[in-house]
Amino acid sequence: MTRGTTPVVPDDGLTTAERRRRPVVLVNTGDGKGKTSAAMGVAMRGWAQGWDVGVYQFVKSATWRTGERDALTRLGGLSGAVTWEQMGTGWSWTRRGDGQQVEAREAAVEGWEYIREGLAEQRHRLWILDEFTYPMDWGWIDADEVAEALRARPGTQHVVITGRRCPQAIVDVADLVTEMRKIKHPFDNGQRGQAGIEW
Amino acid sequence: MTRGTTPVVPDDGLTTAERRRRPVVLVNTGDGKGKTSAAMGVAMRGWAQGWDVGVYQFVKSATWRTGERDALTRLGGLSGAVTWEQMGTGWSWTRRGDGQQVEAREAAVEGWEYIREGLAEQRHRLWILDEFTYPMDWGWIDADEVAEALRARPGTQHVVITGRRCPQAIVDVADLVTEMRKIKHPFDNGQRGQAGIEW
Repeated sequence: MTRGTTPVVPDDGLTTAERRRRPVVLVNTGDGKGKTSAAMGVAMRGWAQGWDVGVYQFVKSATWRTGERDALTRLGGLSGAVTWEQMGTGWSWTRRGDGQQVEAREAAVEGWEYIREGLAEQRHRLWILDEFTYPMDWGWIDADEVAEALRARPGTQHVVITGRRCPQAIVDVADLVTEMRKIKHPFDNGQRGQAGIEW
Repeated sequence: MTRGTTPVVPDDGLTTAERRRRPVVLVNTGDGKGKTSAAMGVAMRGWAQGWDVGVYQFVKSATWRTGERDALTRLGGLSGAVTWEQMGTGWSWTRRGDGQQVEAREAAVEGWEYIREGLAEQRHRLWILDEFTYPMDWGWIDADEVAEALRARPGTQHVVITGRRCPQAIVDVADLVTEMRKIKHPFDNGQRGQAGIEW
């Protein structure tokens, strides 16, 4: 990453400073590694800017503690604000007291409703919607509706979305889309994931 | 990333636990975004495991403070150990007192010498060699020599190498290689990099 000049000078009437502050939607997709870890790297950068960072992990179990969660919530305790939510069988704000499990589909929809409200309210400066492509890909959440909410979001809210098979509607609204492509993976040879590297 | 089973059970005489602790070489290459930020996500995971983490940034200016540097050195102050070195015009351990600038090529070679010694001494548990492909690609550092040092490294040292145009010798020794491929980039439309997202 360089801070150099761009190949095109846009005719958008914005100054360079304004263009540097423009809110962006980033997508990390593809079958390869690094989609979540790159999003977490961006979360660190946002934290260092003093931004309010919200991480919403779809799919991942609510009880699965990852290194990035430990590190970022620790940073959030130092300065800035880091909110960390994992869906599992219900989000922290929806978890039933009666021990009843929420269906994954219902939990995903509840998660998106909460995020959509939060975007309208500018709850965070940087949003990490981890593995958010899956509930869209499965038809649980309407990708066009998400794209519309992203287009309509007020202020300067950056959004990072990760996961395989990113719907085209999200690619269309995104400013930057990266495909992580597997060239060589130890799972091919029977190597297993390990703490410190994979989570 | 799942913790599930692998498609192949390797015939290497190792137990699953041993295989989980096997040292790995990871490469993030390609022209797309996320190579460094994904490496920094892995650094967070390593930190959370209590590992000694060493980040060596080639090419990047020694005075360029990034968010990931702020975040990880802050974490290193809490627990674990995070060493952060940026090459610029000389590393912290080689910087001349006389204000004389070291040639980039010389600095890169000195960096590699120091890292090679450190690998032999098991200085870190997790090494991040950021943008290390460039001095190899430019012919300043011999990729075969690096590959040999990686193969010969003792103990359980994980190494992450980032940068475009990764030499084949490094791909060959790597356990996991991911290509970050640009699908859509705001620079195409004259958008500039910005703090909190790109650094």
